[in-house]
Amino acid sequence: MARDERGVTPQSEDFSSWYNEVVTKAQLVERGPARGTMVIRPYGYRIWELLQADLDGRIKDTGHENAYFPMLIPESYLKREAEHVEGFAPELAVVTHAGGKELEEPLVLRPTSETVIGEMMAKWISSYRDLPLLLNQWANVVRWELRPRLFLRTTEFLWQEGHTAHADEAEAMAETLQMLDVYEHVCRDLAAIPVVPGEKTPGERFAGAVKTFTVEGMMRDGKALQSGTTHYLGTNFAKAFGIQFADDAGRLELCHTTSWGMSTRLVGGTIMTHGDDKGLVLPPKLAPYQVVIVPIARGDQAETVLAAVRELAGRLKAAGIRVHVDDRPQVSPGFKFNDWEMRGVPLRLEIGPRDLAAGTALLAKRLGDQGKVAISLDTAPEVLLDTLDDFQEFLLERATDFRDSHTVTVDAWEEFVAAVATGWARALHCGRPECEEEIKAATAATPRCIPLEAPAESGSCVRCDAPSAYGKRVLFGRSY
Amino acid sequence: MARDERGVTPQSEDFSSWYNEVVTKAQLVERGPARGTMVIRPYGYRIWELLQADLDGRIKDTGHENAYFPMLIPESYLKREAEHVEGFAPELAVVTHAGGKELEEPLVLRPTSETVIGEMMAKWISSYRDLPLLLNQWANVVRWELRPRLFLRTTEFLWQEGHTAHADEAEAMAETLQMLDVYEHVCRDLAAIPVVPGEKTPGERFAGAVKTFTVEGMMRDGKALQSGTTHYLGTNFAKAFGIQFADDAGRLELCHTTSWGMSTRLVGGTIMTHGDDKGLVLPPKLAPYQVVIVPIARGDQAETVLAAVRELAGRLKAAGIRVHVDDRPQVSPGFKFNDWEMRGVPLRLEIGPRDLAAGTALLAKRLGDQGKVAISLDTAPEVLLDTLDDFQEFLLERATDFRDSHTVTVDAWEEFVAAVATGWARALHCGRPECEEEIKAATAATPRCIPLEAPAESGSCVRCDAPSAYGKRVLFGRSY
Ligand SMILES: [Zn+2]
Ligand SMILES: [Zn+2]
Repeated sequence: MARDERGVTPQSEDFSSWYNEVVTKAQLVERGPARGTMVIRPYGYRIWELLQADLDGRIKDTGHENAYFPMLIPESYLKREAEHVEGFAPELAVVTHAGGKELEEPLVLRPTSETVIGEMMAKWISSYRDLPLLLNQWANVVRWELRPRLFLRTTEFLWQEGHTAHADEAEAMAETLQMLDVYEHVCRDLAAIPVVPGEKTPGERFAGAVKTFTVEGMMRDGKALQSGTTHYLGTNFAKAFGIQFADDAGRLELCHTTSWGMSTRLVGGTIMTHGDDKGLVLPPKLAPYQVVIVPIARGDQAETVLAAVRELAGRLKAAGIRVHVDDRPQVSPGFKFNDWEMRGVPLRLEIGPRDLAAGTALLAKRLGDQGKVAISLDTAPEVLLDTLDDFQEFLLERATDFRDSHTVTVDAWEEFVAAVATGWARALHCGRPECEEEIKAATAATPRCIPLEAPAESGSCVRCDAPSAYGKRVLFGRSY
Repeated sequence: MARDERGVTPQSEDFSSWYNEVVTKAQLVERGPARGTMVIRPYGYRIWELLQADLDGRIKDTGHENAYFPMLIPESYLKREAEHVEGFAPELAVVTHAGGKELEEPLVLRPTSETVIGEMMAKWISSYRDLPLLLNQWANVVRWELRPRLFLRTTEFLWQEGHTAHADEAEAMAETLQMLDVYEHVCRDLAAIPVVPGEKTPGERFAGAVKTFTVEGMMRDGKALQSGTTHYLGTNFAKAFGIQFADDAGRLELCHTTSWGMSTRLVGGTIMTHGDDKGLVLPPKLAPYQVVIVPIARGDQAETVLAAVRELAGRLKAAGIRVHVDDRPQVSPGFKFNDWEMRGVPLRLEIGPRDLAAGTALLAKRLGDQGKVAISLDTAPEVLLDTLDDFQEFLLERATDFRDSHTVTVDAWEEFVAAVATGWARALHCGRPECEEEIKAATAATPRCIPLEAPAESGSCVRCDAPSAYGKRVLFGRSY
């Protein structure tokens, strides 16, 4: 912490300090006044907006419509689904007074909206013709966190939550897996996080779900981050809230429902997947500024150079590149270079009088090959678009290599312990919750998921030697 | 209320019942389970999304950046600005328990965010180089309402709130008026509401503001709806939260701040400005579906007609028109016509086998000239784009005529009473709060605004004969 003001603690020394320093110095986020809350600053919020715009498009393209449900939920609603209330009760924030009076029934701030949406679905659905009902909501939710971490676990966070109702299990399961696929693509295509999609073991399921699926990403400290989850809720919430429909023969049936969510947590995941000791490294698709141009000239030449820089910026913008000109007079070029490296801008251009005379600019990448290269001002838009695509791809490949080199197939317990100390272990497991608990107590590792794509395999549990469950290996790791 | 299920109470009979029935039957919104809350259904939320996308673009084009601040605010923050807490205290909802424990300090759900944003601005601003700081947030807010009305006054609503800090009063006032202009354009250009921009009298100011400006729209019952407000806060919040900057000579100065907001209330305003006894009438720019096509054919011909309808819908979509094909097999064309009239779709196309053979479709407008006209399928995209533009303009003109014919310049008290019974009165007023109160007690009318554009005029107060204030006439009306 006694480092120079502009640097950060190296990841290898203390990943957690590195993270906290980077998110603050890059001006992404800060602690809010109330315990566990966060203030998302414009630079961080822009990342969320880019993510949101893309994900919202995918949600609509798959036939869902946005709606909005109240944040304040009568406390009694949560109690209608037994497992659900048990899972969420410890995290609830409760409004007891309003309008200067004590409320007759306390209202909880939604930790998730299955209950209030279930209540409304029951009113809206009467016939098979009303199905499927495909809803999504963008909202804030509140879960009281004991150990808050900016973006990763905050008392209030932003997310989308999809809620759908279907006529049968097959349709609801298809929806659950379809949205998992959407999440996988958002992680890979936008955040350049090569997540592993899989099913959660029973002990890690969402409170009230029959099946929970997840996409798990590996952070640069080898831990796993659950980056999006989808749930097949069976008829649990349909029973609790009376979500029924008349089938084509007029018989009343319970709906099968699903829910799925992705949150501001993914911003934290992006930072921990790509960042390094110089600061953030942003994938171009989520970078508020993809290219920053630093004009380098003093005195007489300053104006000429700045004019040329603005003209170039205009052309880059017209080509669809998010570009920013750093013309701050009060700081040096060196300060600017460090600043934009800290803030993770993928590409930097420097232009001085000599570059201008030569019709070129110096291009520096945030990561990858070393050194600066001169590029022609004329062809800059095309060259930079290509370079941004390459950079996006490079980050995904780098993260994939990192993940693969930190994931080990293990059969012996000692191997397991070693693997989860620095990354993930692929192991056979008996499926017993007590055995999961023992593993967690011994290593802090938990089953992250049963990967969807994995070869059939069976044998004995890596921990207790009992016969393995699931018919394939389970991915274990420490997690956020 | 004993009307047939598909109709609504006429506006002339009971405007309030008409409104409540229309918003429900058009599937825009419903009451939520907790008192005063609302559920915005997909059709209503889509209107909000269209509004939001446009307004967000205008906010960004004027140099503001989006951010996100916590919803939970320590109770003590609100008390730092005396007028502010006095204004909002009766409407606060308070979280007293969280995570299974009683909180040391209660947290209020933001009724607006001047306090928490003021606290952060004080941290972020140190030099004149940090100014202006131009922020905006899209968020939910909570104000406990005694008489909730869907969209118009709900316990929780959605809005954007802009918050800016400036070096001096002139800049802050320019910002306040700039955003008022943005709001006026959003109302006119999107919602086709010919709002009157003006300043609030001291008694109607935002709690903590030095000046409050508003855009006021006239609803079809002659009442006024405050559709957006902007506030010049002077140095009130800067003093309370320590928002200071060093000027270029190094002297510490207080910032001048502003705030401005527009909310889901405008959806209600759009409904009450254009709707009629058949239901909603949506301006094309805010219509989730601008054109609905109803195929009319049975038996063998159904498939041929539906194929042609889909092909046409594809071409309309490609032309940028939001189009919907109503192919519900279980309801009749007549039911569909009524349904889409209730839901306010601007244009309806009917296509049957004979139309198809003639290469035409029958076009019906939701409002305006009577009867259906045949249009050519070939040129349908261009014709419909033009017709939508005309329809948007027609609604604005119609609303302007309505407003103007329901606004009377009055000098005598009896004229005033008559004018505010059915619309607005332009009157000279003394500016005394007690006189405003007397007028309100006698007529339910309040000063809506001192219009920005009005001729200089003075004389004696319409109520008490004291000398008039403000140098111009004040607009009075009953309001929501
Ligand atoms: Zn075991
Ligand atoms: Zn008077």
